Amino acid sequence: MARLNFERIKAAVSKIAPEFLNTPQYENDSLGRACDCRITLKVESLNPIRCFKGRGAELVVSNLMSKGNRNPCICASAGNLGQAVAYSGRARSIRTVVVASNKANPLKLDRIRTLGAEVVEVQGDIEEARREASLMAQQERWNLIEDSKNLDTCEGAGTIGLELAQLGETFDAVLIALGGGAMATGVGYVMRQLYPKTRIICIQPEGAPAMTLSWRLKKVIHTETMDTIADGVAGRFPIPEVLDDLLEIADDTILVKESSMIEGMRLLYEHAGLVVEPSAALGIAALLENQSTFRGKHVASIICGSNVLPEMFKKWVIHRI
Amino acid sequence: MARLNFERIKAAVSKIAPEFLNTPQYENDSLGRACDCRITLKVESLNPIRCFKGRGAELVVSNLMSKGNRNPCICASAGNLGQAVAYSGRARSIRTVVVASNKANPLKLDRIRTLGAEVVEVQGDIEEARREASLMAQQERWNLIEDSKNLDTCEGAGTIGLELAQLGETFDAVLIALGGGAMATGVGYVMRQLYPKTRIICIQPEGAPAMTLSWRLKKVIHTETMDTIADGVAGRFPIPEVLDDLLEIADDTILVKESSMIEGMRLLYEHAGLVVEPSAALGIAALLENQSTFRGKHVASIICGSNVLPEMFKKWVIHRI
Repeated sequence: MARLNFERIKAAVSKIAPEFLNTPQYENDSLGRACDCRITLKVESLNPIRCFKGRGAELVVSNLMSKGNRNPCICASAGNLGQAVAYSGRARSIRTVVVASNKANPLKLDRIRTLGAEVVEVQGDIEEARREASLMAQQERWNLIEDSKNLDTCEGAGTIGLELAQLGETFDAVLIALGGGAMATGVGYVMRQLYPKTRIICIQPEGAPAMTLSWRLKKVIHTETMDTIADGVAGRFPIPEVLDDLLEIADDTILVKESSMIEGMRLLYEHAGLVVEPSAALGIAALLENQSTFRGKHVASIICGSNVLPEMFKKWVIHRI
Repeated sequence: MARLNFERIKAAVSKIAPEFLNTPQYENDSLGRACDCRITLKVESLNPIRCFKGRGAELVVSNLMSKGNRNPCICASAGNLGQAVAYSGRARSIRTVVVASNKANPLKLDRIRTLGAEVVEVQGDIEEARREASLMAQQERWNLIEDSKNLDTCEGAGTIGLELAQLGETFDAVLIALGGGAMATGVGYVMRQLYPKTRIICIQPEGAPAMTLSWRLKKVIHTETMDTIADGVAGRFPIPEVLDDLLEIADDTILVKESSMIEGMRLLYEHAGLVVEPSAALGIAALLENQSTFRGKHVASIICGSNVLPEMFKKWVIHRI
């Protein structure tokens, strides 16, 4: 039984600031033609932190507050969760600390600081940052917010599913970027409850496949390294309880090439006028690599974030136009 | 007395397809820092026609239908109204015809055709297209939809104001792109009703200043020519009744340089991840040219459309990054 709960997800809506809710969702004809299918975009990047993670962080911090817990919050982050926690903490005058890899996207780290959180940089990748955040939380007795492990982060993301469901039983598949699993399990769980025929398809880059490999082998697989431009979904150590949820919720997992993600970014730029970060293009990348599977189908793709350095976007995407 | 009516605008909401409503509105911290003020963006480009005009067209066509009028609809358009009318007509199986200048943005004309409207191209600029549309409508007894003159186009746009007003009495000014005047009078009228202290500021490019000059001199001024990249707001013959409305509603008008619009587009790209058409950057351009006026103030800027050719966006904006 998945850890998620439908009634709690419905109740979460009232605990999330309105700037993160009721995001655009519309069929993009010209993008659909380019991919030979029907595509409804769910756009999560037009908010103060330019990604979907405000939903989860708002729920986490709001639930702590309602228990009278005003201790500092700490999280490890590649940048998006950190911004979300900083934003939600600032709004409620809660101290926040974000632990990040010294290789993290500097745009994201700047934004985290601007939102008022303290940033602790550690040598190594996101998994090192997770270890450090956990240690600091224990030592200081702070609230540790672990993305995807903390159920509020999954159920907060699940509110995206409630909104998509308002469009009715229209989707053959929902394409969800897979990182730690909060968005995949949250959105997938809601769609499964409401429209069990809609396929829940999770997409990860080939260069950071740990959760996909774990899902396929039905056991936690760690990888030694990772190599992807999609910093938002990169991880090496899947969380066991999130894998259990995902095994119940996902219908399929797809791994895609870096070049397909970049082509997906280009298509979103051209057909939707959006500058997105690589992980937001995973769904379009999956369509491009699996055209016969999706031909003529109606899919929803969640545009999960737009935190990308302008110079990197130019290098990856624009120089190809 | 302005032609607009607050109760009708409130009633309009239920006649407009949901994909055009409840668009993102959020304060963008980093953009605000770049402009030395507080900026809330209202983003109207994430919908099937990539601009705000769906609100007005939905209301026009819906109101015709409820009178049992299923005659073809014809309009002149630089491209955005045409897409909107085509979309709303297609959704209701109403024939639509769009008259455009042969110099119109080809991206917009392609989209109009794809949405199922017939496109008639005429020699000359948008004012020639308006003349031709009017003639055809008379000859064929079709419904002529005249942007800004048709009150539904103004009151449809006014629903943007209802949404902004949900944020409370927070704005010192609302910055609205000024073309024919539908958006300026619609949004301005609603804000004036609800928050009379909020200044309604309309912005036009120096290269297409007819309505601004008319507002300043309180009488209709025609211009011989126009020269601006902001095709969405370009016009030479202001409509007398719209000018009357605007005289009552607007607190100020600002003319901006082309280079400021382009800098505005760049800032929206960098700080919001948005590819916008020039007219959508008029508000940011006004901030850049009037920093002492707006310093520390909280303004709302409506991002009215994103229909720009990728190669033009690259030429105008990206090569400067």
